[in-house]
Formats: sequence, structure tokens, C-alpha cells
Amino acid sequence: MYSFLNDYSEGAHPQVLEALMKTNLIQTVGYGEDEYCQQAKQLIKQSVGNHCDIHFVVGGTQANATVIASVLRPYQAVIATDEGHINVHETGAIEATGHKVLTAGHEEGKITVAKINQLVEAHVDEHMVQPKMVYISQTTELGSYYTLNELKDIYQYTSSHHLYLYVDGARLGSALAIEDAPTLSDLSKYSDVFTIGGTKMGALFGEAIVIVNDDLKNDFRYHIKQRGGMLAKGRLLGVQFQALFENDLYIRIGKQENELSMKIKQALEEKGYQLAVQSITNQLFVDMKNKDIERLEKDFMISHIKPLDKETTRVRFVTSWATDKEAVEKLCQTIQQL
Amino acid sequence: MYSFLNDYSEGAHPQVLEALMKTNLIQTVGYGEDEYCQQAKQLIKQSVGNHCDIHFVVGGTQANATVIASVLRPYQAVIATDEGHINVHETGAIEATGHKVLTAGHEEGKITVAKINQLVEAHVDEHMVQPKMVYISQTTELGSYYTLNELKDIYQYTSSHHLYLYVDGARLGSALAIEDAPTLSDLSKYSDVFTIGGTKMGALFGEAIVIVNDDLKNDFRYHIKQRGGMLAKGRLLGVQFQALFENDLYIRIGKQENELSMKIKQALEEKGYQLAVQSITNQLFVDMKNKDIERLEKDFMISHIKPLDKETTRVRFVTSWATDKEAVEKLCQTIQQL
Amino acid sequence: MYSFLNDYSEGAHPQVLEALMKTNLIQTVGYGEDEYCQQAKQLIKQSVGNHCDIHFVVGGTQANATVIASVLRPYQAVIATDEGHINVHETGAIEATGHKVLTAGHEEGKITVAKINQLVEAHVDEHMVQPKMVYISQTTELGSYYTLNELKDIYQYTSSHHLYLYVDGARLGSALAIEDAPTLSDLSKYSDVFTIGGTKMGALFGEAIVIVNDDLKNDFRYHIKQRGGMLAKGRLLGVQFQALFENDLYIRIGKQENELSMKIKQALEEKGYQLAVQSITNQLFVDMKNKDIERLEKDFMISHIKPLDKETTRVRFVTSWATDKEAVEKLCQTIQQL
Amino acid sequence: MYSFLNDYSEGAHPQVLEALMKTNLIQTVGYGEDEYCQQAKQLIKQSVGNHCDIHFVVGGTQANATVIASVLRPYQAVIATDEGHINVHETGAIEATGHKVLTAGHEEGKITVAKINQLVEAHVDEHMVQPKMVYISQTTELGSYYTLNELKDIYQYTSSHHLYLYVDGARLGSALAIEDAPTLSDLSKYSDVFTIGGTKMGALFGEAIVIVNDDLKNDFRYHIKQRGGMLAKGRLLGVQFQALFENDLYIRIGKQENELSMKIKQALEEKGYQLAVQSITNQLFVDMKNKDIERLEKDFMISHIKPLDKETTRVRFVTSWATDKEAVEKLCQTIQQL
Repeated sequence: MYSFLNDYSEGAHPQVLEALMKTNLIQTVGYGEDEYCQQAKQLIKQSVGNHCDIHFVVGGTQANATVIASVLRPYQAVIATDEGHINVHETGAIEATGHKVLTAGHEEGKITVAKINQLVEAHVDEHMVQPKMVYISQTTELGSYYTLNELKDIYQYTSSHHLYLYVDGARLGSALAIEDAPTLSDLSKYSDVFTIGGTKMGALFGEAIVIVNDDLKNDFRYHIKQRGGMLAKGRLLGVQFQALFENDLYIRIGKQENELSMKIKQALEEKGYQLAVQSITNQLFVDMKNKDIERLEKDFMISHIKPLDKETTRVRFVTSWATDKEAVEKLCQTIQQL
Repeated sequence: MYSFLNDYSEGAHPQVLEALMKTNLIQTVGYGEDEYCQQAKQLIKQSVGNHCDIHFVVGGTQANATVIASVLRPYQAVIATDEGHINVHETGAIEATGHKVLTAGHEEGKITVAKINQLVEAHVDEHMVQPKMVYISQTTELGSYYTLNELKDIYQYTSSHHLYLYVDGARLGSALAIEDAPTLSDLSKYSDVFTIGGTKMGALFGEAIVIVNDDLKNDFRYHIKQRGGMLAKGRLLGVQFQALFENDLYIRIGKQENELSMKIKQALEEKGYQLAVQSITNQLFVDMKNKDIERLEKDFMISHIKPLDKETTRVRFVTSWATDKEAVEKLCQTIQQL
Repeated sequence: MYSFLNDYSEGAHPQVLEALMKTNLIQTVGYGEDEYCQQAKQLIKQSVGNHCDIHFVVGGTQANATVIASVLRPYQAVIATDEGHINVHETGAIEATGHKVLTAGHEEGKITVAKINQLVEAHVDEHMVQPKMVYISQTTELGSYYTLNELKDIYQYTSSHHLYLYVDGARLGSALAIEDAPTLSDLSKYSDVFTIGGTKMGALFGEAIVIVNDDLKNDFRYHIKQRGGMLAKGRLLGVQFQALFENDLYIRIGKQENELSMKIKQALEEKGYQLAVQSITNQLFVDMKNKDIERLEKDFMISHIKPLDKETTRVRFVTSWATDKEAVEKLCQTIQQL
Repeated sequence: MYSFLNDYSEGAHPQVLEALMKTNLIQTVGYGEDEYCQQAKQLIKQSVGNHCDIHFVVGGTQANATVIASVLRPYQAVIATDEGHINVHETGAIEATGHKVLTAGHEEGKITVAKINQLVEAHVDEHMVQPKMVYISQTTELGSYYTLNELKDIYQYTSSHHLYLYVDGARLGSALAIEDAPTLSDLSKYSDVFTIGGTKMGALFGEAIVIVNDDLKNDFRYHIKQRGGMLAKGRLLGVQFQALFENDLYIRIGKQENELSMKIKQALEEKGYQLAVQSITNQLFVDMKNKDIERLEKDFMISHIKPLDKETTRVRFVTSWATDKEAVEKLCQTIQQL
């Protein structure tokens, strides 16, 4: 049984693991003030620019809760799509920090300026929360991605309406490998804060938080510590991100997982299955006949998203840095024979 | 200019004010442990039964935040309609206590068992919040009300699905005056906790919280104190609720405000205006032509809810214990002449 | 039995009640945006200056939680004495908004610059909370008061150390009546935010929050609404504070309660009882022999603070706007005869 | 420069790292529902008993905040010593979940039944928080430890006073290696919940939470997820704890670090330096002359805790699983030559 369930089924990319092994017995100071973290930050700054502050935390829910709680005042809210990770899949972690998540419908997994504006205009006085941040995910929870132009449009709106734009980059590598998607440098121009995900991109764990806007930089380490995101052996985050950003490994991983994903997509389409949401990233959502799913699941594991009717279910295929090419070929063959 | 803006434009019902004056110089202990509070509780218990615990707090947002935060564990959420007061008009007070408000669409301002069930079935594991309470308002934010049968259906669902049912009775008096709406005794059978609103029913301020379910009674005074709802001169709440519940004043107020409201409704309907939401309570929502609104607003104040198009706006008329009969007649005549 | 238990045993000062009666049936807009609130604010500004923002909320715990939560960022803490009301008697209301209360010992109920400085110097990095506000009560929880010079010293320290100074004026009137205590004008020079308590000074309820520092003014009404402090019939607060600030009623009340209190103090001292904490305000703490307490309690109610040994208990006498002069005389006579 | 700064200066114990390498490419399900976590739990249950629930989270602050917030109701507080990690070194993480930390003085770093009782007796009604949990650290923040008898005494008190006892075992291995200290089996009898620290005991990171009391077990995974402690690659925690609990590695590490620590202690004592706090664990606190510290710091790194006077500073020496025996010998020689 080969798993296409998600992009965190294995441990770390061999180069990441090797870096951890090499540095294992070297003594450093704790809590991320070591030289590995410094070096990793320098490496990332080559892409995002020196005007950004960079911090590392362990996981994605933590990163989201820490960033959002650090930015908002108690009565302010964050806007996300109704499929947004912070809205659905973080067990109310944002609300646990005291903030409402305002939701808008989505188009192909993405929020639009019109939908943001609707929420902004509906919240007019002190009897309602005050929208202050827009949260988007790149790539989105449904496998789509924001083009550079789409990002610019959203940022143009948020920056002119006293809103902050936060990009959750849990799967950023997959987007960075796409031509018309924003680069790291673009993100450091057209957002206020974003993350570069490690966990789903070949690290054992770890997310880099890139704070672009000066207003959001102050005392950020206090927020990390309070929300439980400060690792005693903080070096582990530096060592891993250093490995991920040497020789463009991070983007190469994204490119490779997209390529394998596109093979699956092609096999599906040749069989007459259109994607439920447009995607050229490492996540594919498809509405499949249950008997076809059953056949696939003799050899492969895939996620069931939701039943659509008695005969059809929405499923998800995910590729990762670790996805075996032969497994993909075998999967494609099996799809062809459905 | 006579105001039909809301039901808290004046001070207190004369009987309430008189009771406050009469008792003003009597010394009592503080924080609601005085004899007036005891007497008021006894009086209310005659309607709701001795199995209920009763507490008084100052305001509605406070009552909602205190009740909901007292019931839910950190990862649990409350279900409301998207128009629910806790969702829209309390500046994130519920989220400020750490809890997500899950929203369902509404039918005539009301939640349905089907919509509750959809949310319950969609929240399956620890990656999502756990729905644990259903919040409804009686009467609703849109002027409709739940019949006894509707309440029974919802309670039947919640009590068999490990959910608590909470009824926000900010305008309960208006509903109590309706024949097929649940009585106080019904509420103490078919809900877990509910409030009896004073602020919008003739008190200077104050809400009575009636805890029906034994599981929710423990240490409730701690919750009140922590959330800022414990009045030093707690007697003021007892004195007022005692006045409101003597000789059925509370229900008589509801009856009277409904009657005046129905006169306005009739005038509107005779003029060809149908209510936007069905209502036989003290709140009427109507989509009116802007030129008609302008005419009315030469003599009367009414709430603008939202513009519908260039020529039409949804407005609200509200009657209260203090609404002047002659003002209503004059309003009706003005409507007839539109 | 006459009660010297506290200063909230009765309702409202007759002039306050009369103002409520007079305005009872006048229609106003809600939530404190009415003209009574405007007038009361103007009246108070005559004392505190036009540079201050003024808001009214219902109660003291609410005022404290709202102010403190509005000022601090999530990782910041407020400093108080170990006897501070926010530390002991608000059921963790401050912590419920997410903030630590750092405590210092007190001298005669008061914090000192040295003690503040100790805490500031002990909190050096992001592994600890960051002290950002100092909370003091005027008069203090133990009946003492800060002189103008003491206030200046503390403010000189806080303003030069990036700390905000917050003065809880629940019993401010008693202090305003003392010669070398800061006036309202002084408070608006030597603090960042303070409250003028109504509940314990003759109102039915209500505290005025005076925001001095511009940095703390933004969007404050959102904070009030979210924390449950915004009264629908907000006019009630305006009407009461207007009455309290016309013809110096507020200070006259303070003067009168101090005078009566000093009579009790004198009687106690003549009997050989020294105050446990220095006080010329309306609160007296005394360590009395239990048999003397028993004798007093045949005719009077006083608070038991804590047993000191088998034969002695610390008790508290409190006078208020409503304290009956004859009752004080009778109390003094009883003390003389102990 | 060899570091005795702390016990998290290096990466992972070689056996832990080897286990991570071996399993790196095996596909598992995420979020701790994999077989490695199951096996690790089984292994730990052999020591703590099958009546316990076991969960793994990434870090200590996270573990503390998650456990404490999961146990307490909003108005309840946790008792710790003033030196308790949750009180001083977690940036208000507990308060950020809404709960007050009540502090007692300590004796040799430890809380006593008398001190707990004092706090319990001082918190009598709803105007104050309600103490509901006692937090102790084993070993303590100051290097001391609770004997089995001391633990029993505390648990006897807490369990008979409706309090929960929580033992923070960040450095539990060091205590487990001491004869009269409680074993894992003892902890599962005489506490309600405790942690087994990995981070400071040879893991890259990770704490095992052992829930003993049935009342605290419900829905615990929701709490972990909400507080950001659920690792996508949850297997990493299982793999590491499996390695730590095979062949008693965990206790052997504790024994070894204690032995090396005792060598340093002996050298210090021979030089006339008595420990500031009694310790036979891996942490030694000593008040040293500054000139001696300067000499040591030519070759070694040690923590400065606080200056005591112009000539003396309290410092800390820590040994760990990774501490080099030769470095300890060299340190001891240097101490001898001071």
C-alpha cells in the first residue's frame, strides 16, 4: 500500500536529515539564538530581502495562532475563506487567542477582493468586530494558487484599507515552482507577513515566519515563547531551513512534487475525471466513483474528503518530496485501467 | 420626532422606577445576596420551577459571554444563525472568551434542526472545534419567534446529541405574549439555560439567567464575577425583576408592545408593504422605498438596516413598553398617506 | 442593626436618583451616545481637561479588565500590590483577558517606586512577561491614599520606563477631599488613565474611565462593547455622573464620608485602638479584641477581614454618602463604653 | 569553551537519532496516530500502568499550558512556587489561557503542604479565583527533588481537598535515578497528571503527558491540537520516546548526568563552596565569587542566575546526557585551582 494521503507521511528529506546528523553533537545556545538559525535567516534573506525579520517555529497551527494574535488587538478579526485552514482545521486555535475568524466564500479555493470588501463594508462600528487582517494560503487548502497579479490586487486592497495581509505558506514550495506565482521576493513586497512551510516541504517540522511590515516586528519573540513555539533546541530549525535553502532545494522539491502530481492529473483526465478545483500543484481534488476509489485503494491510500452522493466521493491525491516515481507510474497505470 | 428605533430609548417602566425609589435608602448586603434578589428569584421560580437556578447580571452581551464561557470547554463551539446576536453584534465577545461561533443560515431568522445537524456532522474529530451548544434568540434578531413545537424539536435534537440549548431571551416578553410560543415553564423544560431580558422589557437594565440543567449550575457566581457582571449594589437587579414579575407586568408589557406593533404592521400591509421577515412581535422589518422612508423620517425615527438597491432600504420599526399610543396612531396615519 | 460594612449598602444619593426620575421618559439614542453622556463628559472635562477621553462603564471589575486588556499586548503584564483589587478580589478577571498580574509587597497599602523597579529589573527577556503597566488604587484597598508627591514620583518612574500608570479610582472621592492628595487635574497630568468611581460614591452604579494618554484612546468603545460594559440605556451613566459632578457633589460626598470616618477613628484611638493601616479616608482597618467586636455587633455590622490570633480579628469600618450621623455618634458612644 | 549552561545544548542522544534515521522513509499516518507512537505508549505503560492515557507534545511550555488549560474551568487557578517555571519562565503562557498562577514561597525549591493550605484557606468565595490544581516540578527549577514521601503528603492533601496534582517532569530522568524519589509507577499513583520530559533528557524535543486521573482524560487530543502541540509528523515523538524507554535508556541518562554533577559538587564543596539549594541532581546552584567565575569562564560556560552583591553571583552548572566526562574532570581541576 503506497500512500498519497498527504505530504507529511515520511520523515525528513535526506539532505535535511544529514544536516541534523552532522551537527548533532555541537554545543550551541538554546532557543534559536544559535549560529545555525542566524545562517538560515541570512540564506532566506537573500531571497526575501534584508528588510524582513525571520523567526522559526515548530508547526503551522502554532505559526498561524502566534502571528495572528501578535497582530490583532482584542476586538479585531481576521478574514479567511470558509475553507481556510484557520477556520476549519485548527480546532479554534485562533479563537482561543480571542479573535473571530470572519469568513467569505471562495472561488476555486481563493478569496477575492470583492469578497473581502463585502466583509469590510459590513463591519462599521463598535458593535461588531473590526476586520484587520486577511489570511490566505499559498497554495490554497484546495490545491489552487494565487498568481502574482492576484496577490498584488489583494495587497493593493488591504494596504489601502488599513488591513494586514498574511500568507500562510505551509505548502509554499509547490507555489514557488509555478511560473506566474509570486516569488519569495514578491511575497516580501506584496504581503505584511508570510510563512515558509517546512513540515510539508521536506523538514521534520518547522515553519519560517517572515515579517515584512515593520509595524509587526516588535517583541515577536515574546509572542513565540508565550504561544509555546520556542524550541529549546532551536538550532534544529536553523539547521533544517539552512539545508532546505541551500542550492534551491526548497524550490526543487516544489517542482518535483508538482511534476509528479501533474502525471496523476493527466491520467485522471484521460480517464474522464476533471479536477473539482483547478490545480497544478501537489494537491489534486477529484470527485470519483466509489467503485473506482475502491479499486485504487487496493494498492494506494488517498484521502476521502466528503461523500457527494451515494456513488461519488470527493478524494484527494497528494505528492511530496518523498513521493516515489514508480509508485506514481503504478498509480497512473491503475487509473488507466479503471 | 418620535423614536421607533428600539426598545431601550427610555428609562424604566414607572412601576420599576417606583420600586427603586421606595427601597433606595434601605441598607442591604451587596453583590446580589440581598433579600430583594431572593424575593425576585422566588417570584420567577413560580413560573420556571424550583429546579432552576436564577442569577441576575447587568447586560445582554455580558449574559451571553458569561453563560457560554461557563458551559463550553476550550475546544468547544456554539452554533448560532449567521444573524445571531452573538455572531454579529457583540464585537467578538464570545471569541474573546476563547470560543468559536459556528454559523448556520436561517429561515425567517430561525435555525432549524437540519442546519444544526449539518454542522454537527461536519465536525468529526480533534482537528476541528466540537459543537457543544446551540444558541437561539426568542424573539429572534429579525422579529420572528420559535413556536413551542419548534423549540421542542430543537431541544429533542440537542438533548439527544450531547448539545446544550441556550435561549437568549433579551426580548422574551414579546414572545411570552404569543399564544403558541413557549411559556416560561416550557422553557424550563425544553432548554438547558435561558435568559429573561429586562433591559428591553422595561427595566433600567438587567437580565435574569435561568439555569435549568443541573450540570451547568456549579460555581456560576464565579463566572459572573470574573466576567464583570456582578453588581456591587446587586439589589437593583432584584428590585427591578421583582417589579417586573409582580402581577404579570412582564407579560403585559410584551402583550402591549405586540399590539402596537401589529397596528403598524397593518398600516404597512394596507399600503402594500409586506414584512421582510414574518413577525407578530415588537420588531418589524420592511423593505421600503427611500422616498417613503424620507417622508416618515420627517416625524419619526426608524432604524436603517441595509440598503437593498438604489431605491429601497430595509428598515426596522420597534415598539416598547413606553411606546406612546398616539404616536403609533400618528405613524399609521402617515403611512396611510404615503 | 446599622451597617458600616461598606459604601454600597444603599441605593443612590437623592440627587442622583432625582436626576434619573426626571429624565426617565425622555427618548434618547442608546449605548452612551446620548446628550446626557455628552454633558456629563463636558462637566468632567472642566476638571480633567479637554485632552482627556471619557467613557462610562457599569462596574469596577469591568472597568479594570477593559482598561488593562485595552492597553497591554498579549505578553505584557500589569504590576500591582499583593493587596491590589485586581490581584485578589476580581476572580482572575485580568488573567481571563490573558494577562499576568505581577505583585509587589506594599507599604501602608501603597506601592513604591523601589518595588516597581525591582519587578521591572527582574523581567529582562522574552522568557518572562514584560511589565507594561502599573496599577494603583486611590484610595487604596487598605484605606490609605497616595499624596500628590507620591503620585508624581511613580509617574515620573513609569513615564520614563515605558510603563503606563493606571489609577483605579473606585473610591476617588474620598481622596479628592484630602488636601495633599492629587486633584482630578493632577491625575490628568500624572497618570495615563484613571477611573472616577460612581458605585461607591453615591451612584446606583457606574465608573468613568478617563484616558489621558493619546496612545490609549483609539477604538476604546470596541473594548467596552466586547467586555460587556456598554449599557443599552447608556444615558443612565451620563445622567448619574452629571448629577455627581454638578456643584461639586462628588467631592462633597468624599469630604462628608471622611469626616464621619474620622469621628470613628478618634473614638477608636481614645479607646487605645491604633489603626492597622494609616487612614484619613472612609475606610478604617483595626485589629480589635473579639469580645469588643461582639459587643459592637449587637448594634452594628462591620467586616471581618481576617483573624489574627485567638483573641483578635482585623475588622473594617466604612462610611459612605449615606452614612447616618446619628448612627456614627451611637457607634462612637458604644466604642467609648467598650 | 565547554558549556555547562544547560541540558539542551546538543542535539539528540545517538540512540534517539539512530531511531529517527532508521524510520525516516517509512510512510505513516500523521498527527501521532502511527504505530511508533502506539509502541512508545505501550512501553511507557509498562512503567506507569495501563490506567494512564499517554500523549506526546513538542515542548514543555506547550505541555504545561495544554494540561493546565485542559483541567481548569475559567475561574480556577493553579498553585505553584514563586520560582515555578510556569510562574517565571513561560512569558505568561498560563495566563494567556485565562488562568491565574497563585504563588507560594518555597523551601529548597519545593512547595509544602502548609503553604498550599494557606492559599486554599485564603480563597473562600466567588470574589477570588478558586485554587484547583497544584503544580510541582520534578526535579525542581532549583535542582532539588521531591522524595516519595513528600509527593505522597502533597497528593494526600490535594486529593482530599478537591485539587489536582500536576508534576512537570521536564527533568524527570534525573529524579528517577535517585533512590528515595518516586518512580514512574509512584507518580501514576500519587499524582493526577504528569509529564516525562524528552527535550532535556536526550530527545531532539518532546514531552510525554501521562494522564492518571480519569476525569482529565476526555477529548485531550482536542486540547493538544488547539494549543499548537500536535505535530503533523507525530511519529517523530513516538520514535524518540521508544528509543528513550528501551533498555531503560531514560533512567540511565538520568543516573549518568547526576553522577557527573556530583563530581562537580564535590569539587565545589572541597573548595568551600556550599550549594545555594540542596541538590543531588543535574543542576547545581552556587553563590560564587566573581573572580572565581571569571576564571572558570575562560574555559567553561555557566549560567549567571542573579548578582547577590558586588562580589558574588549565583551561578548554575548543568550536566546532561551529552556531558563529556573529560570536560567535567577538567572543570573539577579548574575549580580545585581557584
